[in-house]
Amino acid sequence: VSRKVSDSTVRRLSHYLRILEHLEAGDAGTVSSEDLAGQAGTTAAQVRKDLSHFGSFGKRGLGYAVPDLADHVREILGLGRPWRVALLGAGRIGSALFEYADFRRRGFHIVSVLDADPAKVGTTWEGVTLRHPDEMERVVRDDGVEVLILAVPGEAAQALVERAVAAGVRGVLNFAPVQLRVPPGVAVQDVDMVMELEALAFELTHAGGDVP
Amino acid sequence: VSRKVSDSTVRRLSHYLRILEHLEAGDAGTVSSEDLAGQAGTTAAQVRKDLSHFGSFGKRGLGYAVPDLADHVREILGLGRPWRVALLGAGRIGSALFEYADFRRRGFHIVSVLDADPAKVGTTWEGVTLRHPDEMERVVRDDGVEVLILAVPGEAAQALVERAVAAGVRGVLNFAPVQLRVPPGVAVQDVDMVMELEALAFELTHAGGDVP
Repeated sequence: VSRKVSDSTVRRLSHYLRILEHLEAGDAGTVSSEDLAGQAGTTAAQVRKDLSHFGSFGKRGLGYAVPDLADHVREILGLGRPWRVALLGAGRIGSALFEYADFRRRGFHIVSVLDADPAKVGTTWEGVTLRHPDEMERVVRDDGVEVLILAVPGEAAQALVERAVAAGVRGVLNFAPVQLRVPPGVAVQDVDMVMELEALAFELTHAGGDVP
Repeated sequence: VSRKVSDSTVRRLSHYLRILEHLEAGDAGTVSSEDLAGQAGTTAAQVRKDLSHFGSFGKRGLGYAVPDLADHVREILGLGRPWRVALLGAGRIGSALFEYADFRRRGFHIVSVLDADPAKVGTTWEGVTLRHPDEMERVVRDDGVEVLILAVPGEAAQALVERAVAAGVRGVLNFAPVQLRVPPGVAVQDVDMVMELEALAFELTHAGGDVP
């Protein structure tokens, strides 16, 4: 199924989940695919198609039971369980990510932090003792790390990711401005903030419509 | 043209630019569409198609002159000029973004910082005096702000964006976990780090291929 489900479907499922949790908080009992679509900025047919990849939900004419559908979407997205995450890079971006409450709320627990700065190694952040990247293999194994958040400069990234993957990491959230090479079966999501600004600059530059 | 050029084309142009600048730094004179494609993880036909939206570059059999093509791609992306940026939200994420050197290197200059915390208003970050969001209109006008980086909690975001847009902002890089509503002609790029982790969790959960 993984191959047949596009990135944009997964993105929409994340949107649906946010809407469903908002409805849950407001004690809504049911929601129609039309309402869900309206709030997600898509069509009811798209909502039904996205969900149909993963089984049969809702009853025609009755809509979806909100808490049930929220549970289903959480399960589909792999959020029915906690994930053990290591943060590599304890600089500005890294420390902001470490304190980012929405990660933990969603079940992503940063259980390890690694940084090469000798002044940081051995210090403790909310009970997590910072370790040197030389200890990558031991950290991944001892802490049961499944996902790596990469917040180090570009040059250092590839070699450290290779060691993390060899030690058992299966997913990487990459903030380094490099294209990582990973073996099949390892998932990478890139967050390139400069690229997002470039996309804005493109849109603003070509907003008139007459290019070049 | 804007309508005909897809988000993924713009994303690839950003990739090409990184590769071209790397080649420039290494004093490479020319590059073929095959080489560029190989490094960008796409096909030569795709490279030629992406560039053909914006005119005619390169000579058949001779490839592209690296510095010329880099200049062209910078122009296409709207990076041939600096952009004046306001940062809204001087918390953890905001301060990390303020210090993010790659923004300035790319021509995105954070000229204003706004935060509602009275302890922060009036303090100075590298010569930029922090202002209260109540002053949004004046800041946008006086500082000539074109782009807003939004790093405030979700609830506050929409109303502040509306004021910024009314005052002249045309693009928003949104780190708040909300779907912003903006008038036509205003560009929004969302950076939702939780959603990126959800996409990873999805991939790792369905890696086996047999779902649900």
